[in-house]
Amino acid sequence: MNTEKQFEKLEPVHVETLDNILGKPFKVLDDGFIRVVDYMGSDQSIVQAARVSYGSGTKKVSQDRGLIRYLMRHHHSTPFEMCEIKLHVRVPMDAWRQWIRHRTANVNEYSTRYSIAIDQAVKTNPEKWRLQSSLNKQGSEGYLEIEEGIKLSNEEEKLHSNIWNIYNKRIEQGVAREQARKDLPLSTYTEAYWKIDLHNLLHFLRLRMDKHAQLEIRKYAEIIGNEIVKKWVPLAWEAFEDYRMNSKSFSKLELQLLSLIANNKNKEATQLATEFGWLKMKDDKLVKSLERIEFEEKLESLNIPKPW
Amino acid sequence: MNTEKQFEKLEPVHVETLDNILGKPFKVLDDGFIRVVDYMGSDQSIVQAARVSYGSGTKKVSQDRGLIRYLMRHHHSTPFEMCEIKLHVRVPMDAWRQWIRHRTANVNEYSTRYSIAIDQAVKTNPEKWRLQSSLNKQGSEGYLEIEEGIKLSNEEEKLHSNIWNIYNKRIEQGVAREQARKDLPLSTYTEAYWKIDLHNLLHFLRLRMDKHAQLEIRKYAEIIGNEIVKKWVPLAWEAFEDYRMNSKSFSKLELQLLSLIANNKNKEATQLATEFGWLKMKDDKLVKSLERIEFEEKLESLNIPKPW
Amino acid sequence: MNTEKQFEKLEPVHVETLDNILGKPFKVLDDGFIRVVDYMGSDQSIVQAARVSYGSGTKKVSQDRGLIRYLMRHHHSTPFEMCEIKLHVRVPMDAWRQWIRHRTANVNEYSTRYSIAIDQAVKTNPEKWRLQSSLNKQGSEGYLEIEEGIKLSNEEEKLHSNIWNIYNKRIEQGVAREQARKDLPLSTYTEAYWKIDLHNLLHFLRLRMDKHAQLEIRKYAEIIGNEIVKKWVPLAWEAFEDYRMNSKSFSKLELQLLSLIANNKNKEATQLATEFGWLKMKDDKLVKSLERIEFEEKLESLNIPKPW
Amino acid sequence: MNTEKQFEKLEPVHVETLDNILGKPFKVLDDGFIRVVDYMGSDQSIVQAARVSYGSGTKKVSQDRGLIRYLMRHHHSTPFEMCEIKLHVRVPMDAWRQWIRHRTANVNEYSTRYSIAIDQAVKTNPEKWRLQSSLNKQGSEGYLEIEEGIKLSNEEEKLHSNIWNIYNKRIEQGVAREQARKDLPLSTYTEAYWKIDLHNLLHFLRLRMDKHAQLEIRKYAEIIGNEIVKKWVPLAWEAFEDYRMNSKSFSKLELQLLSLIANNKNKEATQLATEFGWLKMKDDKLVKSLERIEFEEKLESLNIPKPW
Repeated sequence: MNTEKQFEKLEPVHVETLDNILGKPFKVLDDGFIRVVDYMGSDQSIVQAARVSYGSGTKKVSQDRGLIRYLMRHHHSTPFEMCEIKLHVRVPMDAWRQWIRHRTANVNEYSTRYSIAIDQAVKTNPEKWRLQSSLNKQGSEGYLEIEEGIKLSNEEEKLHSNIWNIYNKRIEQGVAREQARKDLPLSTYTEAYWKIDLHNLLHFLRLRMDKHAQLEIRKYAEIIGNEIVKKWVPLAWEAFEDYRMNSKSFSKLELQLLSLIANNKNKEATQLATEFGWLKMKDDKLVKSLERIEFEEKLESLNIPKPW
Repeated sequence: MNTEKQFEKLEPVHVETLDNILGKPFKVLDDGFIRVVDYMGSDQSIVQAARVSYGSGTKKVSQDRGLIRYLMRHHHSTPFEMCEIKLHVRVPMDAWRQWIRHRTANVNEYSTRYSIAIDQAVKTNPEKWRLQSSLNKQGSEGYLEIEEGIKLSNEEEKLHSNIWNIYNKRIEQGVAREQARKDLPLSTYTEAYWKIDLHNLLHFLRLRMDKHAQLEIRKYAEIIGNEIVKKWVPLAWEAFEDYRMNSKSFSKLELQLLSLIANNKNKEATQLATEFGWLKMKDDKLVKSLERIEFEEKLESLNIPKPW
Repeated sequence: MNTEKQFEKLEPVHVETLDNILGKPFKVLDDGFIRVVDYMGSDQSIVQAARVSYGSGTKKVSQDRGLIRYLMRHHHSTPFEMCEIKLHVRVPMDAWRQWIRHRTANVNEYSTRYSIAIDQAVKTNPEKWRLQSSLNKQGSEGYLEIEEGIKLSNEEEKLHSNIWNIYNKRIEQGVAREQARKDLPLSTYTEAYWKIDLHNLLHFLRLRMDKHAQLEIRKYAEIIGNEIVKKWVPLAWEAFEDYRMNSKSFSKLELQLLSLIANNKNKEATQLATEFGWLKMKDDKLVKSLERIEFEEKLESLNIPKPW
Repeated sequence: MNTEKQFEKLEPVHVETLDNILGKPFKVLDDGFIRVVDYMGSDQSIVQAARVSYGSGTKKVSQDRGLIRYLMRHHHSTPFEMCEIKLHVRVPMDAWRQWIRHRTANVNEYSTRYSIAIDQAVKTNPEKWRLQSSLNKQGSEGYLEIEEGIKLSNEEEKLHSNIWNIYNKRIEQGVAREQARKDLPLSTYTEAYWKIDLHNLLHFLRLRMDKHAQLEIRKYAEIIGNEIVKKWVPLAWEAFEDYRMNSKSFSKLELQLLSLIANNKNKEATQLATEFGWLKMKDDKLVKSLERIEFEEKLESLNIPKPW
């Protein structure tokens, strides 16, 4: 083998649309931000890695877009791992705790053992107090009345002021930073460098851009997705939106029902759903069945009337 | 191959000393605990995994203790990964944040989005306010005077009471739990199931039982090490203490110096340290050099006088 | 808190149906096997971990089966990570290479540097030579004619015999085992202890029980799934079959088409598919479009005629 | 906060010495190579990540070199994870199996299911047949006599030729590539893209540049270390050599002995070693004790005579 001949010198990979925003902070919440610090790879790097499989003797079988869509559709994740991005983020600690549950990233965080804590916590404006969702035990829906909101926001402002006074007093008296911080609110801002590969980043975004994700972290995820990843790897992003964000999965049971319904066999579908235990009655009312409700929502999104 | 003959039926592995404390809570801090929920493997499992390498034709070369010590000494980590343990812990959130930086564990945590927050934060007693270390920017040393401590503890008690009132009022007014919690103090207790293999657990303990670890998490690490792991895998624990906790590493430079000093060549050692830049003078005083200071500490622990 | 009162002593978790096969080898291929060496957890452990989230004040909202199905359906993977299993396997090296691409497991493998290699490679019987698939570049379909197969199998037998003679001669002459092995065939058997949590095991099984997986590794995956996991965690296994193995995902584009078709708007569906570029013609024939073909297969599995 | 003001636009990070060799293949073994395809970060990125901890109000406390050495010395690994490199390698499969045991990298490998196998296996020259080590069960030392080597190399050449004929015949007869490959030798070359962060790469190099690593993989590791990493992050590389490659660790027992010896208490040292069980006699000869031998080697490297 003459490797010298076979391979030419390479130039570093650049994506101009991403270079244009390198270092630029995108504002999030009242005092947070996200900036791209560095990155490696592009749509083209995904294609390049996938084509290692074909070896030197194989022709270019498909266009880049088609290949990237194929990889995404069939969960061939390793080529997406060939791209890497490093972000600098400023995030409230309660959102950050959800964030770092994603264990596949590299992290360097601001240390409040080493340094004085960032003197900012997320402030909630009077019209932004969210109500507990009645349907979703871990969600919110709608907002508190403004009069109540004003009271809560005032109270919060005083509380924050009180907490920072106490923190500062402890520091002045010589209390160790690692202990002085113990009563700071969960929504105090922290900063971090966060580095992750594209495959794991898309997994993060799928979960955190979801409507069930908490609003605060969702704001960050939306910026990362729509302002950063979309500019970085536009073909991978398009495939991600088609095959992940906007796709729906149907279980074995749901596929059986869907087949019957599409073939105008609503009676048989109802019979089958009854066998699944989805249509139990109590006191003349349908008993709540999450599986049934979720299927009904899918039918509705397809504009198909439910058969029962 | 007659596999039926070759292998006998196995019985589940048990370690009686660990079975005796299964489910039993060890108290930590004022309201925390650790309990063993389940485990898999024993010292014997480490040996068994290591011996896969030898194949069927090889005799038992060494006793179990010797083999485990050999594996530990030479950083052969995979046999230790064959043991797994699951703990139920109750920990203040600021210690928990340090805890889950160890990314190789499995975690299920109490959700304050789903449920009302645990109404306990760590209370600091008047004599327990630690002073900022002057040497170590992220450490503490000594305690605040008791009169000052009394004031800080009183103030903290009022603050906690105020915060819980505000939290409860928000909940009563219907604010979503995910948002109502935002001003809880960092030292609020959380609970989690935490599952990890022995190799990664020992790595965790090495870092968190270290004197530089923050006191709060160190308390947990000490219980896990001395009350749990020691009972579970006594041979691995002994090896861990000898080769990790109580070992010291000497750099290339330090080995050169040590050799000179042990051969009574203090002048040459001083000359060499000067070349390393460890003995710079400014205004007739030695300039601070961390590398030199750390080496001097090692010499002192060996009862060897420093040569300069 | 009175932790002593709150928690009772625990007993080790056992699943009787799995205990019954502990250590028993299941034969795979001509000389391979799989045995369960140890395990931790059960269906009940999944439920237990999920319920940590609810805290003490919450009632048991749903039955175990419903909860496990909910977790599986919504990709809440952490409770499944609370179960762990350790297998002893004997596998040909080419299948083993695919196997250990799953990076989330713990592995101790038989060492042919340390010991003489296992003197067995997979033998292919005359009727078992598979033909290259014409559709799937990395698949096989159908079998070679028996007369040809006999020749290939004879030739292989001689080759194996030749290779083992050469290997043994090298060893006798004192060549290092690490080098003597270099010409052993890829299908030589190796052995390993392999430990993995249930979430990652199910991911492994989803990929390796798939009809596109290579036959050899699929045989192992089928035993693990149907003979081991099914006995270990029957509720999780049932949910896995419904929501993973036998589910189908529809992309954004496919959902749009499905909605039109189910509402008898075949013309509009055809129009839309044309816009997607799925219905390009060349020389009066439909150009091959993988996305279209995969959608047509989904329609066929639902007994829905394609609209174009 | 005025984030716009606080942060300036960034330029992509480049290391000129590494850019100069981007894409250039380094030859390894008879037909292998390593090329750098892409990278992210530099020595400066390590420093930048470490300084996140200090926050905005802290001055630059130390020079970059000192900081990097401090991080390496104290096993602060996360800043090193901020650098990432992607290599294209051509490696014999038996070395590749050792390679991918390092689970923290991203991999895309040449597929012999999809494509015809690379028709090259490592050829061993007559003078390169290594002898089994008598001391180290998994090592080699010295070489076979040349006359024997000539015979083995001739035999190997014929074997390879035979194997490739059989492989090609199977392919011609239509046997699936995934099955036709089963008798290729373990030393057949494969290719892969391999991407890893600097922390994990250094860990890989520590193990694979070690004299106990198999010669073949060591050749690759040496190129990566000395030709690539050294050019990429020269300060981190220097620290790695001082604190990892050329350091030595002393166990608790060894430290006790070293202290006694350095203080001319050889008798007490001998007494202590006897208590450790290091000096057992059998038939008037010292019984082999690995722990004692390894300590004696350390003493020798320090030019300190053993005390017994």
